[in-house]
Amino acid sequence: MKIDVLTLFPEMFDGVFNASILGKAKEKGIVDLHAIDFRPYANNKHNTVDDYPYGGGGGMVLKPEPIFAAVEDLMKDTAVKPRVILMCPQGETFTQKKAEELSKSDHLVFICGHYEGYDERIREHLVTDELSIGDYVLTGGELPAMTVIDSVVRLLPGVLGNESSAVTDSFSTGLLEYPHYTRPPAFRGWEVPEVLLSGHHARIEAWRREQSLLRTLRRRPDLLESVDLSPKEREWIKKQLETE
Amino acid sequence: MKIDVLTLFPEMFDGVFNASILGKAKEKGIVDLHAIDFRPYANNKHNTVDDYPYGGGGGMVLKPEPIFAAVEDLMKDTAVKPRVILMCPQGETFTQKKAEELSKSDHLVFICGHYEGYDERIREHLVTDELSIGDYVLTGGELPAMTVIDSVVRLLPGVLGNESSAVTDSFSTGLLEYPHYTRPPAFRGWEVPEVLLSGHHARIEAWRREQSLLRTLRRRPDLLESVDLSPKEREWIKKQLETE
Repeated sequence: MKIDVLTLFPEMFDGVFNASILGKAKEKGIVDLHAIDFRPYANNKHNTVDDYPYGGGGGMVLKPEPIFAAVEDLMKDTAVKPRVILMCPQGETFTQKKAEELSKSDHLVFICGHYEGYDERIREHLVTDELSIGDYVLTGGELPAMTVIDSVVRLLPGVLGNESSAVTDSFSTGLLEYPHYTRPPAFRGWEVPEVLLSGHHARIEAWRREQSLLRTLRRRPDLLESVDLSPKEREWIKKQLETE
Repeated sequence: MKIDVLTLFPEMFDGVFNASILGKAKEKGIVDLHAIDFRPYANNKHNTVDDYPYGGGGGMVLKPEPIFAAVEDLMKDTAVKPRVILMCPQGETFTQKKAEELSKSDHLVFICGHYEGYDERIREHLVTDELSIGDYVLTGGELPAMTVIDSVVRLLPGVLGNESSAVTDSFSTGLLEYPHYTRPPAFRGWEVPEVLLSGHHARIEAWRREQSLLRTLRRRPDLLESVDLSPKEREWIKKQLETE
């Protein structure tokens, strides 16, 4: 997979692109990652990439020309059109399902604004997807782009050592994860639940499922709607709700 | 404000902490940012920070001792207890409201796991907040911590040049932003809406409000529930829904 990020702050990406899973995926040749400064595409006297908004108001707006030129330059050697993804608060809320969809593409291009808004013509005539990673205000699209890239790249075959890890995580099963414990068995007087030390596999599985359900019920009941639950589990949840 | 991030990958933070708004906030002395490797706190032969989960299963679990030791070391010179924030998929979904709440603290400590789960005793007896930035699976808590930090620091007084920018952004008003346009007035035949060139301030304001409502209605109708709308606007929205 090829991933290009258009940004005015390419130096923000170095640490993230070279560390951990992304760094390893790059080394293994599974993904080709580039952070590209689009300022040189401005092609005007002062390399100006933004300008005042028509109609007035605070803030600057990214001009269409540099971004169209940069994306078209990235596309000129590729037969298949890339997904062109605009990171913006107005975008579709990014989810694990979207990560899985994007992981099937050959080429992703991310456009990151910074402080500024985007000229609407970029949205209308250039991008294929508009994504937001959540309902909070950030300085730019750089951290959101890194976040989307991390979640997509870890789904590519060969990236995670243990293929099963990608499946059992929260949001992949639809339930929040059950509590984890490791040594020591007692830390400052706080003990590991006995069932986990029992060696009784079936009881451990049952406890974990129950804890997952309970945690999801208490913290994110909205997630339960889209999970496959047995009739017995639905009954059990109903009882929990009545008791609390 | 003092912000400490406990991580096994401190090098991921350099580019982000030194660029743009965060870099400037650091330079101005408004925020004191540190990414700290908690491995040396393991205090065992091989600096081991994780171990196998009790009860079996894939993946590793972060041990309680190094993380308790690191957080307590950060707290030893401070009179006021910091907010200790665990970045994890099971956490409360981060929002702009939470960013505003955190921006009032003097000291934030972020704990970032990576691949692994956390021993439950960290959750139960050490942290004050558990945060998730969205419903997708990431390799570690590093990108989520950077995201929360960016959204919090930009709210601190003196960080943003133009104080008003923090207020008019999406999610601050509750509506998605209206479309922005800048020069050229025609780009590849695509023209800027006439009203924006009219110089008629009241008409421009009305158009922008309408566009904000329309965009929110089409893309994120869930946001409309918590926005202050005039009876006339509610009526207008109802009409839009009937027409579409």
